[in-house]
Amino acid sequence: MKLVTVGTVAFDNIETPFGRADKVVGGAATYISLAASFFLEDQGIVSVVGEDFPTEMMAKMKAKGIDQAGLEILKGKESFFWSGKYHYDMNTRDTLETRLNVLLDLDPKLNAEYKAAPYLMLGNLDPKVQAKVLDQMDAPAMVVLDTMNFWMDSALDELKRVIKRIDILTINDSEARQLSGEHSLVKAAHMILEMGPKYLVVKKGEHGALLFSKDRVFFAPALPLEDIIDPTGAGDTFAGGFIGFLARSGDHSFNNLKRAIIVGSALASFCCEKFGVERLLEITREDIDERVNQFIELVDFDIEVVRD
Amino acid sequence: MKLVTVGTVAFDNIETPFGRADKVVGGAATYISLAASFFLEDQGIVSVVGEDFPTEMMAKMKAKGIDQAGLEILKGKESFFWSGKYHYDMNTRDTLETRLNVLLDLDPKLNAEYKAAPYLMLGNLDPKVQAKVLDQMDAPAMVVLDTMNFWMDSALDELKRVIKRIDILTINDSEARQLSGEHSLVKAAHMILEMGPKYLVVKKGEHGALLFSKDRVFFAPALPLEDIIDPTGAGDTFAGGFIGFLARSGDHSFNNLKRAIIVGSALASFCCEKFGVERLLEITREDIDERVNQFIELVDFDIEVVRD
Repeated sequence: MKLVTVGTVAFDNIETPFGRADKVVGGAATYISLAASFFLEDQGIVSVVGEDFPTEMMAKMKAKGIDQAGLEILKGKESFFWSGKYHYDMNTRDTLETRLNVLLDLDPKLNAEYKAAPYLMLGNLDPKVQAKVLDQMDAPAMVVLDTMNFWMDSALDELKRVIKRIDILTINDSEARQLSGEHSLVKAAHMILEMGPKYLVVKKGEHGALLFSKDRVFFAPALPLEDIIDPTGAGDTFAGGFIGFLARSGDHSFNNLKRAIIVGSALASFCCEKFGVERLLEITREDIDERVNQFIELVDFDIEVVRD
Repeated sequence: MKLVTVGTVAFDNIETPFGRADKVVGGAATYISLAASFFLEDQGIVSVVGEDFPTEMMAKMKAKGIDQAGLEILKGKESFFWSGKYHYDMNTRDTLETRLNVLLDLDPKLNAEYKAAPYLMLGNLDPKVQAKVLDQMDAPAMVVLDTMNFWMDSALDELKRVIKRIDILTINDSEARQLSGEHSLVKAAHMILEMGPKYLVVKKGEHGALLFSKDRVFFAPALPLEDIIDPTGAGDTFAGGFIGFLARSGDHSFNNLKRAIIVGSALASFCCEKFGVERLLEITREDIDERVNQFIELVDFDIEVVRD
């Protein structure tokens, strides 16, 4: 098993200025593992759902090589539920309701196969749970952690303890500013890299993503889309494509991290085209390649001429 | 004379979360012409100032090849004054005060040399004044227009009439949405291109810039800066670098427009490093080349590997 992902598997109610969808399957681990499945035949998820979770979706995920030995199903209980409403700019949103339900019982116990996985994705969750999973791993070659401002507000010390132990942190720009207390993104990035991770990925939604190491920086735009239907899960899809691509290649050089950012951005762009995970279930590896080519064209320029 | 720029020449009071500067020289035509001066030895500005405008700055601009035959100096009157305060994100601002002063008397009359210029930059101004300048031109090879939401709110019909007659429009993302009535930037761009211009440049501040033609799109990031001291004039500096580069090369192909976008972005990044035009007066052509190289590195990736 190449990759283990811990994160939520959930139901979402999503409202945008252009439409709404109720009780669609969502959750960080769902988006991450589906995105990674384009690059990996063998991965597992660690999560918990209630009896209400559709077996049909579980079968679809299994068919894509997503092992569910780490997915607990709690009888008589309900799955984690999130409801949110996007603002007109589609880049910001309000949480309308969160029902933790089964998430309160999430106490991951990894089997030997999961423990031995070389890649670990710690999806957005209570940093205590993220640490508990990390504690059980044998010796992962790469650990990526995603988190949110919610945990910076409510569990900063625990979050910092787990950030110290990971390789790559993915957060958005305002979270990078919050975590570092620095307004300048460049300074914020360097302060965060001092906290432990070797790399920082700053996700900026429709404005793209930045990859920072101690001495390098790379920028990938988001693909300008005709229609953004639902950005929910785009950040998780990005992370899933990113770590899936890295796990497939086994190459952790900065140049390959850049490629992984482009691939993650391509996958995230698909995610936004329909509600929930629908689009991720439709696309093929060829669709992704085609979109990667659009990225190449989007940023390609040749400027020898300026030095005349 | 290669380029004529019409726009404000002004005093600004600028307040940011990190500092303030009072009565610094600003104005669209000032930033545009200084940026363009790195590529052109011979250009003119069309504007008006009061008796209070510093002759020292006029001499500095003249030394950079910026002709002032089109710059009226009104005795006993005061120059245009703008005062603004930036929000914490440095990407949005409030206008605190605008004193039009001499701007009320701006009634441009171009001499023969100005009329014959092949490049015309219509800086942000009342579209009636922009049209009046355009009316006087013999046959410019390229006309670039910059405008703002203020004119969309107050003089939309006149603005649309002048937009119909230009080659390239530069506005920010929210203005593109306002002008088209479309939320999707891609759709907004295509609607705006239907209004007349061959190209649209969407400026997104710290999030970069997009160049649209009817069938192509190019994205240039903004350079992540250690410190953004003052974004005032960054959009005008971008436009000045853009049209200056184009005017120097005479090449209007999409590929060369892409280069012009990168050069404009490089100049805009310098502009933000100090208050007012200070940084633009310090830098050299070599500084710009070095920064262009940083852009190349920032977005460079090689992704053959994804098609394994």
